[in-house]
Amino acid sequence: MLNLASPTADRWLAQVRAHLPEILIDHAHCEKKAAGAAMNLLFAYVDRVEFCRELAEIVREELAHFELVLDLLARRGIPFRKLPPSAYGRKLNDLVRKTEPHKAVDRLLVAGLIEARSCERFDLLRRHVADAELAEFYDSLFECEARHHSTYVRLAKHFQPEAVVNARLHELAEAEAAIVAAGEDLPRMHS
Amino acid sequence: MLNLASPTADRWLAQVRAHLPEILIDHAHCEKKAAGAAMNLLFAYVDRVEFCRELAEIVREELAHFELVLDLLARRGIPFRKLPPSAYGRKLNDLVRKTEPHKAVDRLLVAGLIEARSCERFDLLRRHVADAELAEFYDSLFECEARHHSTYVRLAKHFQPEAVVNARLHELAEAEAAIVAAGEDLPRMHS
Repeated sequence: MLNLASPTADRWLAQVRAHLPEILIDHAHCEKKAAGAAMNLLFAYVDRVEFCRELAEIVREELAHFELVLDLLARRGIPFRKLPPSAYGRKLNDLVRKTEPHKAVDRLLVAGLIEARSCERFDLLRRHVADAELAEFYDSLFECEARHHSTYVRLAKHFQPEAVVNARLHELAEAEAAIVAAGEDLPRMHS
Repeated sequence: MLNLASPTADRWLAQVRAHLPEILIDHAHCEKKAAGAAMNLLFAYVDRVEFCRELAEIVREELAHFELVLDLLARRGIPFRKLPPSAYGRKLNDLVRKTEPHKAVDRLLVAGLIEARSCERFDLLRRHVADAELAEFYDSLFECEARHHSTYVRLAKHFQPEAVVNARLHELAEAEAAIVAAGEDLPRMHS
């Protein structure tokens, strides 16, 4: 359902256990960036009304999550601050082709794969972090990210035929798996 | 309360009466642009948590309005489409100073003045357009725009002292009034 080409390695859960506050701060930034990416797509393809409505809904939901993570940080006394991002988003965005309709398809599929990886990691967090509040929190976000993944893949099919989109999704998912497999020293939601 | 330096001239209501569908389409774009501007401010000053929360709330409300205007257009069989914008927003943004903290103050006050002018015009629309559905619609949006105006002015006071912000607001309001007095041939929410 999530179209990921590989599962997250145990290495990442070790990073989470050693640096939980930093992962939570990064999670807030990820929700904000997800809202910003959906807003940019809305502005880029504003002549398609149904497309706009679905993206507006995603922006609103991501910002609501952003506020929920800020609440969680506040309850734990973790000050929210700027963080250098992981290279994950930049590496994925480098794969976006420059001409339409490929550009639209790639932007949507990259956004969809980021949602899918977040969703997969929320599932790991809810199952493996020994913290009832966090388990419940990530459980509450899990379904929404899965739905956003499906929405992005469906929206890409407005720009190219289903078989073409599915083939490109498979290619990008392989690239995403390679990026995640390389790993990153900075502890982040997508390291 | 709205800090505008002049009321809208009758000329604008004549434009509205002659080009209502185009004004409504432009209104949808204005809500989208208001959401985008608030999102850009959130990204620019993300290290201030309470600031982020208030801006996230504004983005969500502006996008909800965007969707409501799309609904209104759909009910009236008016196709949503791209429109060349009025020069109003660009002329106002040209007044934003380039260095901090002036830049933050000006961006917030410009956003606040756009909300104030929208609010003033929604009031004119609800009182002078002989259309019960529109009167009710603009009545429902009026208070929210007034609140956004107040929020932006209050947020500006996080960056400079109140007296300095109030003086700059007065200057920018005079400039805004001059921009509106010059008028524009394109029928738009801020023409």
